[in-house]
Amino acid sequence: MSNIKNSFMLRAIELSIESVNSNGGPFGCVIVKNQKIIAEGNNQVTNLNDPTAHAEIVAIRKASSTINNFNLEGTQMYTSCEPCPMCLSAIYWSHIDKIFYGNTRVDAANIGFDDNHIYEELNKELTLRMIPMEQINKSDAIKAFEKWNLKSDKIKY
Amino acid sequence: MSNIKNSFMLRAIELSIESVNSNGGPFGCVIVKNQKIIAEGNNQVTNLNDPTAHAEIVAIRKASSTINNFNLEGTQMYTSCEPCPMCLSAIYWSHIDKIFYGNTRVDAANIGFDDNHIYEELNKELTLRMIPMEQINKSDAIKAFEKWNLKSDKIKY
Repeated sequence: MSNIKNSFMLRAIELSIESVNSNGGPFGCVIVKNQKIIAEGNNQVTNLNDPTAHAEIVAIRKASSTINNFNLEGTQMYTSCEPCPMCLSAIYWSHIDKIFYGNTRVDAANIGFDDNHIYEELNKELTLRMIPMEQINKSDAIKAFEKWNLKSDKIKY
Repeated sequence: MSNIKNSFMLRAIELSIESVNSNGGPFGCVIVKNQKIIAEGNNQVTNLNDPTAHAEIVAIRKASSTINNFNLEGTQMYTSCEPCPMCLSAIYWSHIDKIFYGNTRVDAANIGFDDNHIYEELNKELTLRMIPMEQINKSDAIKAFEKWNLKSDKIKY
C-alpha cells in the first residue's frame, strides 16, 4: 500500500538508481511544495566536477531557482539517504519544513561514504581538526561585518 | 608588514566588502594553488536566490571547474570568516589542504549570522532536531546502494 509521501520517496529512489547508471553517486532527492514536486536532483559530483553537487544541494538550488526565492519555507524534502552534514546544513539555511529519508548514514558508511567522519570533525575544536585552520588578518576582516551592521537596506537570509 | 598569505586574505576581505556593496552577505573567499589564486567567491545567496551560494561554496565550485577536478587536494582556502557547517563540510568533501580565516563564528553571530545554531542541530539525535526527520521506504532505498556496491567501474569521490 502506498500514499503520496511514498510516491515522492519512490521518485527520489528512482533518481538515485538512475544516478548510478549515469556514473553519479547513488543518491536522489526531490523537493515538494503543495503536494507537487518542484525540483529533482541526483548526485553529480563526478559528472560535473563539483564536490558540492550532492543530490540535496542540486535539488535545493533548482527549487530556489524555480520559486525565485532563497527561502524554501513551505517545502518538504524527500531524499534517498539521510543527508550528510553539508546537505543538512543547507537544509537549515534554506528553511525546508521537513525531511523524509530512506537509507541512513550507517547504510552510506557501509558502501564507503563516510559522512560520519565529517560529523565528528565538525564537533572538534578548531585546533584538533584534520584540516588545519589558522586565523589571520582579524582586524582587517571585521571591517566587512561593521559595514554590514551599519547597512540600513540589507536583505537578511 | 605583509606576506603572501596576508595578501591572499586581504583579497578575500576585499571581496567580502564588495559583497556588502552589491547586496550580498559580508563574506569573501579565495582558493589558492601553487601560490596563485585559482578561484574567488563572495556571498550571493540573495542575489542569485541560492541558499547554498555562500562565498566558500561559490569559490569551491569555481576552483573545481577551473582545474576540472572534484578533488581540490593541493589547494588552500582563504575565507574572510570561519566557515559555517555547510561550507566546512564542503571543504572536507573537496579535500582542501588548509583553511585560513579572518572573523570567527562568534563575530558572525554578533551581526546576526547564527551558524552556531546549525552546529548544535547537527549534534542532536535525529528525533530531537528542529527540522523533523522521518524514515520511509528503507527497503526500496537500499537498492541503489546495492547497485553501487556491485558496480565495478564506479568513480569514488
